[in-house]
Amino acid sequence: MENMRFLKPCGCVVSLCLAGLLLCMPALQAQQENFTPPSQNTRMCLSCHTRFTPGIVTDWQASRHAAVTPEMALEKSALERRMSAETVPDELARYSIGCYECHGLNTDQHADSFDHMGVTINVVVSPNDCRTCHPTEVEQYSGSKKANAYKNLMNNPVYHALVGTVTGIKTVDEHGRVLLQAPSQQTLNDTCLACHGTRIEVDGMHMIDTSVGPLNVPKLTNWPNQGVGRINPDGSLGSCASCHSRHAFSIADARKPYTCSQCHGEPDVPAGPVYEVSKHGVRFASHWQEWNFDDVPWEVGDDFSAPTCAACHASLVAVSGDVPEVVAERTHDFGARLYTRIFGLIYSHAQPTSGDTSIIKNADDLPLPTTFLGQPADEFLIDEEEQIARLGTMKAVCTTCHSSDWTNQHFERFEHTVQEVDHMVLAATKLMVQAWENGVAENANPFDEGIEQLWVKQWLFYANTVRYASAMTGAQKYTAFHDGWWDLTHNLQKIKDHIDAHR
Amino acid sequence: MENMRFLKPCGCVVSLCLAGLLLCMPALQAQQENFTPPSQNTRMCLSCHTRFTPGIVTDWQASRHAAVTPEMALEKSALERRMSAETVPDELARYSIGCYECHGLNTDQHADSFDHMGVTINVVVSPNDCRTCHPTEVEQYSGSKKANAYKNLMNNPVYHALVGTVTGIKTVDEHGRVLLQAPSQQTLNDTCLACHGTRIEVDGMHMIDTSVGPLNVPKLTNWPNQGVGRINPDGSLGSCASCHSRHAFSIADARKPYTCSQCHGEPDVPAGPVYEVSKHGVRFASHWQEWNFDDVPWEVGDDFSAPTCAACHASLVAVSGDVPEVVAERTHDFGARLYTRIFGLIYSHAQPTSGDTSIIKNADDLPLPTTFLGQPADEFLIDEEEQIARLGTMKAVCTTCHSSDWTNQHFERFEHTVQEVDHMVLAATKLMVQAWENGVAENANPFDEGIEQLWVKQWLFYANTVRYASAMTGAQKYTAFHDGWWDLTHNLQKIKDHIDAHR
Amino acid sequence: MENMRFLKPCGCVVSLCLAGLLLCMPALQAQQENFTPPSQNTRMCLSCHTRFTPGIVTDWQASRHAAVTPEMALEKSALERRMSAETVPDELARYSIGCYECHGLNTDQHADSFDHMGVTINVVVSPNDCRTCHPTEVEQYSGSKKANAYKNLMNNPVYHALVGTVTGIKTVDEHGRVLLQAPSQQTLNDTCLACHGTRIEVDGMHMIDTSVGPLNVPKLTNWPNQGVGRINPDGSLGSCASCHSRHAFSIADARKPYTCSQCHGEPDVPAGPVYEVSKHGVRFASHWQEWNFDDVPWEVGDDFSAPTCAACHASLVAVSGDVPEVVAERTHDFGARLYTRIFGLIYSHAQPTSGDTSIIKNADDLPLPTTFLGQPADEFLIDEEEQIARLGTMKAVCTTCHSSDWTNQHFERFEHTVQEVDHMVLAATKLMVQAWENGVAENANPFDEGIEQLWVKQWLFYANTVRYASAMTGAQKYTAFHDGWWDLTHNLQKIKDHIDAHR
Repeated sequence: MENMRFLKPCGCVVSLCLAGLLLCMPALQAQQENFTPPSQNTRMCLSCHTRFTPGIVTDWQASRHAAVTPEMALEKSALERRMSAETVPDELARYSIGCYECHGLNTDQHADSFDHMGVTINVVVSPNDCRTCHPTEVEQYSGSKKANAYKNLMNNPVYHALVGTVTGIKTVDEHGRVLLQAPSQQTLNDTCLACHGTRIEVDGMHMIDTSVGPLNVPKLTNWPNQGVGRINPDGSLGSCASCHSRHAFSIADARKPYTCSQCHGEPDVPAGPVYEVSKHGVRFASHWQEWNFDDVPWEVGDDFSAPTCAACHASLVAVSGDVPEVVAERTHDFGARLYTRIFGLIYSHAQPTSGDTSIIKNADDLPLPTTFLGQPADEFLIDEEEQIARLGTMKAVCTTCHSSDWTNQHFERFEHTVQEVDHMVLAATKLMVQAWENGVAENANPFDEGIEQLWVKQWLFYANTVRYASAMTGAQKYTAFHDGWWDLTHNLQKIKDHIDAHR
Repeated sequence: MENMRFLKPCGCVVSLCLAGLLLCMPALQAQQENFTPPSQNTRMCLSCHTRFTPGIVTDWQASRHAAVTPEMALEKSALERRMSAETVPDELARYSIGCYECHGLNTDQHADSFDHMGVTINVVVSPNDCRTCHPTEVEQYSGSKKANAYKNLMNNPVYHALVGTVTGIKTVDEHGRVLLQAPSQQTLNDTCLACHGTRIEVDGMHMIDTSVGPLNVPKLTNWPNQGVGRINPDGSLGSCASCHSRHAFSIADARKPYTCSQCHGEPDVPAGPVYEVSKHGVRFASHWQEWNFDDVPWEVGDDFSAPTCAACHASLVAVSGDVPEVVAERTHDFGARLYTRIFGLIYSHAQPTSGDTSIIKNADDLPLPTTFLGQPADEFLIDEEEQIARLGTMKAVCTTCHSSDWTNQHFERFEHTVQEVDHMVLAATKLMVQAWENGVAENANPFDEGIEQLWVKQWLFYANTVRYASAMTGAQKYTAFHDGWWDLTHNLQKIKDHIDAHR
Repeated sequence: MENMRFLKPCGCVVSLCLAGLLLCMPALQAQQENFTPPSQNTRMCLSCHTRFTPGIVTDWQASRHAAVTPEMALEKSALERRMSAETVPDELARYSIGCYECHGLNTDQHADSFDHMGVTINVVVSPNDCRTCHPTEVEQYSGSKKANAYKNLMNNPVYHALVGTVTGIKTVDEHGRVLLQAPSQQTLNDTCLACHGTRIEVDGMHMIDTSVGPLNVPKLTNWPNQGVGRINPDGSLGSCASCHSRHAFSIADARKPYTCSQCHGEPDVPAGPVYEVSKHGVRFASHWQEWNFDDVPWEVGDDFSAPTCAACHASLVAVSGDVPEVVAERTHDFGARLYTRIFGLIYSHAQPTSGDTSIIKNADDLPLPTTFLGQPADEFLIDEEEQIARLGTMKAVCTTCHSSDWTNQHFERFEHTVQEVDHMVLAATKLMVQAWENGVAENANPFDEGIEQLWVKQWLFYANTVRYASAMTGAQKYTAFHDGWWDLTHNLQKIKDHIDAHR
């Protein structure tokens, strides 16, 4: 459909005609390019799946994977290249990257490999498979908080307690008491792990009915899932399809904020909604159909006129010229350009040094980056020098449109807001400590009482919202009245009122 | 504007030129086609309304109704046809479907017919008028819950009590007591009935001032309205313009989720917002401008690469080929492919057998599909065989992109979630029963006290939200923190806290 | 990029070819037009900034300012003209409107003027500078509530108390008391004043590091900001870039609802979200890519098929014809077509006569347009004759698509809703007065207690939401359950419950 994208908006075939002498047919040529020969195995896949799962076949046919062989991809200049491997195995080099090229990789390492119509394939294509052509991206990703998102949530006793309290079924007994049960795996998969990723294992084979009759396929646990920290049947972490959705695996889609907004929503991580009402988001909404989301490097002004999530946090951004000047190197560790972490646990803090945050211990011996009274676990967090370097990287992106003075003052205000919001979390926490000490609440489980849940809202919902909104300047709806300062204030008062009523 | 759609994106006239010998003018041709001759009466309408209501005239001019006569429409193959009538009256067959062809139909059955500039017309075009060319669609629709939406709400004493409590004015008397009045008709029209539909009747004629001077027109009650269950002056139910908005009446618009989102919003029926952050919705947002929303049948892959509301719930969906293979037949009963009803009243339940749900009586003799403790009113609900058949129809759509195993496991998780959420509603209801029994609340009106309103939120807002989000996989924002499990848990605790405080 | 807009959707160069004899290159011609010669000074700016801030340079290059000289602009007919000045200074007339033409204006009146690379320029271009070519627009704007938005908020002791209570840091002392501090300037700037505008002053010069080395630039206070009531270093009010965003300053962008939604969001002024689910908004979402947002006058039907915010509240709207017929004159006082003010303070009321609302005094001697019991401060509000005239202007826009009867009945329902909602505010206020009288709350600060904040939500969030939703017919989500009647009712009950619990 990628070529059709160029044709469809006109609703007619467009031809170039130079003084009647020359007839060019870019549409047709492009279409031919698009049908770079698939391998024999892939042609076999297509022979059935074109009929039985036409949606994903059409997706793939419109993709760069279908149009370009690795050999062709490697002809690009270093800056324009989308593959980070310098070479690929011979059997892949001269075919389009089709069904078999991905589902047939590393089958000996996959617990989910099986014989399908005489060919051994894997159900779940993993980052380790994508690594064949994209090793740098997988390397960067594997060290990120995203790749570790399952472990970071489930292996951390504090977060795990919160997860269990929220998602466990509650039963009311004959005395009117509310009893909390441990959450079911299905509900974990349907809530937290839908974004964080599930652990996919293979529980033997099972026969299923399909439109071509019964098939024997691996029985996967905790499937389907495409969370960012998914634990795959080959032991690798993550799902590239979280952002590069199947089966187009498009760079353009991953650069659009819609993709990020699937997980980054209100009220805990409201990056998507905040962006939407920011000046950047307003320009995106008004103009993105005119932009080029596919260009590598991604050139400020030429390709886009306001940053999306990807421009600031991931993409190879450049300024055009005879030789494009790189503004920010591509990264698939989405925290790599961030100096502070505004997702408060429970306060903002310097970014952790490792993507695996389950290793953190703070001064209270809790696995949190700050203590409940705000002391950071410094040895697990990046130092000031690294913070300054990362802030510099981010500012380099800002200053492709904004003056240095504008940019500096934006970040000064942002830092001030982060501090004040932390202060509002501290106020709530002091009230909470008082409630625990006075027996107004019991801190055996710090998340299961009404007043404790107000406290969670203070740091997880409202403090985060104000920080995100301040970071992406111009989303004042969220700094002020929508989960913003209004709620920081009103919610603090509710905690206070609860204490006063139960004194 | 439909043709202009093809021209405008280029901002220039596009011509095809083959070696300078051939000059084609598709633009002009298209424009001529677009001006299929209107009838004499319609030309008369246009002669004034082009000047006085140009917005709707331009809408119509860009529509298929303006471009195609019934005779032309009937030339299409059965699968491509947009009319379900096999024949139409002679006087309609060879003209475009213009102002008079619709507003001049069945005037003897319309209480709102009147003489306008010497011609008898109706103000409100109704499904019964559309039936002339589209009988199957009207037939399907008439039996649906949508068509019965007015009655289902207003003739059900339980829902009616909720409606009255929410929308009635409250007065504070000199003793500080809050007194509830019955809601005004205007406020009912502006809230619940805006979606459910109003009862439009004719209260004589009245003179109004217009830009052409005073006109004598029927005085309609509860107008304007285009709710899905509107009771029209000819006695028919519904408004096709709810989804096929005036005066383009476009199939393309009805297939876009924007249309459905007008009513299906947070927090009670959050299908629209849930779709927006689902993987399907993300792909829609990124790609819909490249899709063909006008094709009949609607072909997976060729026309679209992710389902919209219509693809799963209404459209004639097919897989392309020499002869397109039908995946799902078109239906205008939007519940016809649904096996379970996740809009809990107060629990989820099998779909009702009749679109008229006001006939339901449960074991407690209440007009609800389940009792307050969860027992379904089976005799009014579809049986297991029918449920299995409907689930099969839905899965057929899923498997045009997803594997059978993926699809099966998705629905297993969904069913598990539905059950657990019902459990969370049961817990809240048990607390509520306790509150009523202990005198903490009075159940004379089960909706008018603070604690009762928390209970309503449990089943109407939070349980529904989790179920909708689980159904449309990948909207974890809504299963988790945004009206999701967080709120099911926190709200239950609030109910418990209220009881404890008033013991 | 404006020209590129016409080219990009095709993804190829489109040429017109007439029988092989004529070769037209509209693309190239357009591109040449686009590069109307900049002035010598502007060329000097561009020589560096093309490299150092390419984003804003590309923005400008795609703009009408870059493509058209004032002399060319003045050749348009009166109705099509985008400049309201009849003449411009000679030195501006024959160049494109580039960097220097705006940043070099009126430097003697700017506290923020400074020497930059040998040229005197201002950092902040103000409405007074834009006035050179657009005097009528600036004149209209200057008298509006928007231009006075800083003063209206900060110089009004009642609103100021609310602002301070919401945005001030709260500290918890050793006795568990919550202490409120005055808000910091940075947090005011990051919340309320981000929309309302900050006061920008010059605090000397300072050296900053930039990519071209250290630069000496004016040190601006409360910067960056582009709020609608910004107080500029030249004393003028507002920022045209609030809506015509830098550096394209596009009329098309300002006509899209995305722009307005940046400030007009949930829960206090939910015009944006309400529009999104209204029938108008649904049509916008489905069709705006086909519309012409750049045409002057803006023609109903020809240019757009559903109104955006601008169509109803600002733009020069016309009906096409040999001579377009004006439906509504352009205004940059966005209240000029409004007869009632549905942003309740604390009740709805007739629009104020002056954009400076800090001058209002009601019968209780408070600077509010109504008393707490609902009596309007009539002498500061427009009279009935003016209200009727304004309603007529608005209806003229409606009736380009809707019948007079439809339109009249819409407004009747709207007025009824406004009255009922005011009634719901009155009920809450009566409870509040009772709470203050009985000592349940203290009204020294009427905004800092839990129950008082519930009262604020009644009029600031829920009453406003219902009124906005009723005004833009078809946004029933917001009249009913989402900050609507449900919340008016449930919140009133919470206030009542609070009083009962503290009696």
